[in-house]
Amino acid sequence: MTQIVHLHEALDGQRLWDDVQSLAAIGALEPKGIRRLALDDEDNRARLWLAEQGRSLGCQVYFDALGNLFLRREGQDASLAPLLIGSHMDSQPQAGAHDGALGVLAGLAVLRTLQEQGIEHRRPLEVVAWTNEEGARFAPGASGSSWYVGQREYEDIVSALDGEGVRFGDALQACLTLLKDTGLEYRPAPFVPHAFLELHIEQGPVLEQLGKPVGVVSGIQGVNWYRIQVEGVANHAGTTPLQARRDAFDGAHELVSALKEATREQDDDDLRFTIGKFSLWPDAVNTIAQQATFTIDMRHPRQAVLDDLDAQFHELARNQWSGCDVTLEVTSRVAPVAFPETLLAVLRESADSVCKEAPELVSGAFHDAIHLAHVCPTAMFFTPCRAGISHHPDEHIERQDADIAVRALAHAAETLLITRNNAHDSDH
Amino acid sequence: MTQIVHLHEALDGQRLWDDVQSLAAIGALEPKGIRRLALDDEDNRARLWLAEQGRSLGCQVYFDALGNLFLRREGQDASLAPLLIGSHMDSQPQAGAHDGALGVLAGLAVLRTLQEQGIEHRRPLEVVAWTNEEGARFAPGASGSSWYVGQREYEDIVSALDGEGVRFGDALQACLTLLKDTGLEYRPAPFVPHAFLELHIEQGPVLEQLGKPVGVVSGIQGVNWYRIQVEGVANHAGTTPLQARRDAFDGAHELVSALKEATREQDDDDLRFTIGKFSLWPDAVNTIAQQATFTIDMRHPRQAVLDDLDAQFHELARNQWSGCDVTLEVTSRVAPVAFPETLLAVLRESADSVCKEAPELVSGAFHDAIHLAHVCPTAMFFTPCRAGISHHPDEHIERQDADIAVRALAHAAETLLITRNNAHDSDH
Repeated sequence: MTQIVHLHEALDGQRLWDDVQSLAAIGALEPKGIRRLALDDEDNRARLWLAEQGRSLGCQVYFDALGNLFLRREGQDASLAPLLIGSHMDSQPQAGAHDGALGVLAGLAVLRTLQEQGIEHRRPLEVVAWTNEEGARFAPGASGSSWYVGQREYEDIVSALDGEGVRFGDALQACLTLLKDTGLEYRPAPFVPHAFLELHIEQGPVLEQLGKPVGVVSGIQGVNWYRIQVEGVANHAGTTPLQARRDAFDGAHELVSALKEATREQDDDDLRFTIGKFSLWPDAVNTIAQQATFTIDMRHPRQAVLDDLDAQFHELARNQWSGCDVTLEVTSRVAPVAFPETLLAVLRESADSVCKEAPELVSGAFHDAIHLAHVCPTAMFFTPCRAGISHHPDEHIERQDADIAVRALAHAAETLLITRNNAHDSDH
Repeated sequence: MTQIVHLHEALDGQRLWDDVQSLAAIGALEPKGIRRLALDDEDNRARLWLAEQGRSLGCQVYFDALGNLFLRREGQDASLAPLLIGSHMDSQPQAGAHDGALGVLAGLAVLRTLQEQGIEHRRPLEVVAWTNEEGARFAPGASGSSWYVGQREYEDIVSALDGEGVRFGDALQACLTLLKDTGLEYRPAPFVPHAFLELHIEQGPVLEQLGKPVGVVSGIQGVNWYRIQVEGVANHAGTTPLQARRDAFDGAHELVSALKEATREQDDDDLRFTIGKFSLWPDAVNTIAQQATFTIDMRHPRQAVLDDLDAQFHELARNQWSGCDVTLEVTSRVAPVAFPETLLAVLRESADSVCKEAPELVSGAFHDAIHLAHVCPTAMFFTPCRAGISHHPDEHIERQDADIAVRALAHAAETLLITRNNAHDSDH
């Protein structure tokens, strides 16, 4: 016991930082940033690097049918379900070094400290790197974690094509062959973890603005995605009087005003409403647009708010706008996730042990944790990134923030690793 | 004299219609429409076809350095500047058979009637087909006519590249070689015509709505083109609170509302305001736009109105919108053209002779006439096209409308061909 409570203090912050730099060298871009697209050569090299870290620590290293990679340290009681800690190592095309990677390496830091300090614990620990969280090469993302928990079908996942027509399944097969040839062990069946913990950069500005190195994530916002098409009549910009037009741009402009008005009426700071794609057809300076197409990304922590606005959006889309008809299509719906209170209590205590008044926040981004939450108690820590920037080579974190955040994670891991049975236990 | 006044009555409408069908077969698309991109094989075949019509009528056929093609019939007084009638034969990629072509063939119909009826006239007549009016393959358009009147430099024109990297100058050289090999005469120096007449489809809905087969065009609207860029900060759609955003889409949306409000305050039916291009960068569903770029095409017959709104647009662009800076660039300014009253009087009389209460309208589209107006009295006739549709295979005209419109043109040609000296005469 004496040993276990020291885990978060014994953790070597310099080693974690060195690991961050080592992993960032795989797929490094000039002058900065990284690119490790899911299942590409760099992403696979990252797997081999992580596997080597695990083997050199004397851990068991497994991979599964989706190329998810696991490093396992046995506990005293092999009958207990393991605590799972991790995130992902794939990236956006032009990315920073910490999105996902930090969470995997934080798990590795916990594992290494336990191993090198010879700390015993009841429950097994596994560190995981999930396949294709980003969805940048093969859409949608979170392939590894969503398959793992049974949320998505293997056949659907492997049939995705990348921009060059390469099939997910073929890229995956090459990866699995590589892992097998390296002598790693294949483990076909997912297990149900005791709990899943993920440390991730916030990808938003809140912690930085509060000046806090770590925050407890109490849940993940729900998201509705829409694709809206406004259908007008193409015509000559010079010859068509305004009253004779059915201008799809004008229609879209009016509709957007109405949609925004509906969101403003909610008067809710937690609401996120983004039009990130907008295009016209035929897209010519002197031709009235025949078609305007745009997307909405709408997020909120509460399903009721999403449902209310969803109904209003559908209602607005039934009207004509500038004489144009509208088609509104829901392209994705992900329900909000609230992490369980009992696990959050553990994380709050851990965060408070390393950071005075660590804040609590809701994740605006998706993470692998959203899927794990379906099968086991799940929660996350956030650590700030400068100006909230991610998915960009300018992504930046401060070493001292990461050092504090990983200690919060280690503290929570201690608590969970020594617990035989508790409210979250799936194996009593 | 007796012969001359009969020209518009003697004109054979069936032959004009047959010519329309013959020319439409060159570059015909399945199931309908045509495609004759400037200086491509089909456009060159159209030149050869027209040259052959001229030669078979015993006319002189010339081409110049831009591939403009001229069919000349001598008048009794070779010292007089010729009346010039024509338009263009090139088209948009998916076009109808009448945009441009009708004006050239109407000129040919006048020429043929004079020739076949043996009608004598004082002043020479030339029918012209201008090169690259559309600007669809090589931008900008009106190459032939703008060069002819000295508005644009030869070197600038020939350096344009098409979408496949072919230089205008190289395509032009191939065309000129073909014309030369066919035995046509090269005429290097432009002459100043007595007047220029152009019959064109309206490309707008006005004549059709009025039920009139022909209208007198009193001028061409002035046009200002703008390119507006709104600069925000890209960020994650889920993690960035609304008040922390500088969303380029939001900025563009607000700015567009203000621009539209300024145009509405003019309360002027002649104003045309079109946003035909709009794009976001990076253009991803879940990323706040860093950049929004859009265009404005604004037209009005009076320069003062364009100038007033231009000043307001610049003023609005100096503000921030949703925290975003704005860059407004004027990419093109074409001043309104008012055709000369004395020539319009001739056209009004001609139109009235074939159509009761022929309306007068301002062209919202550019035409070669806008350039010719710089050097000689110029005016146009419009004939309706169904629903104002052009630049599309659905472009359609009624044979009886074309028949009446060409007689108005012939009537005006009669008047101008017998005139020795008048207010518009550039060679007295």
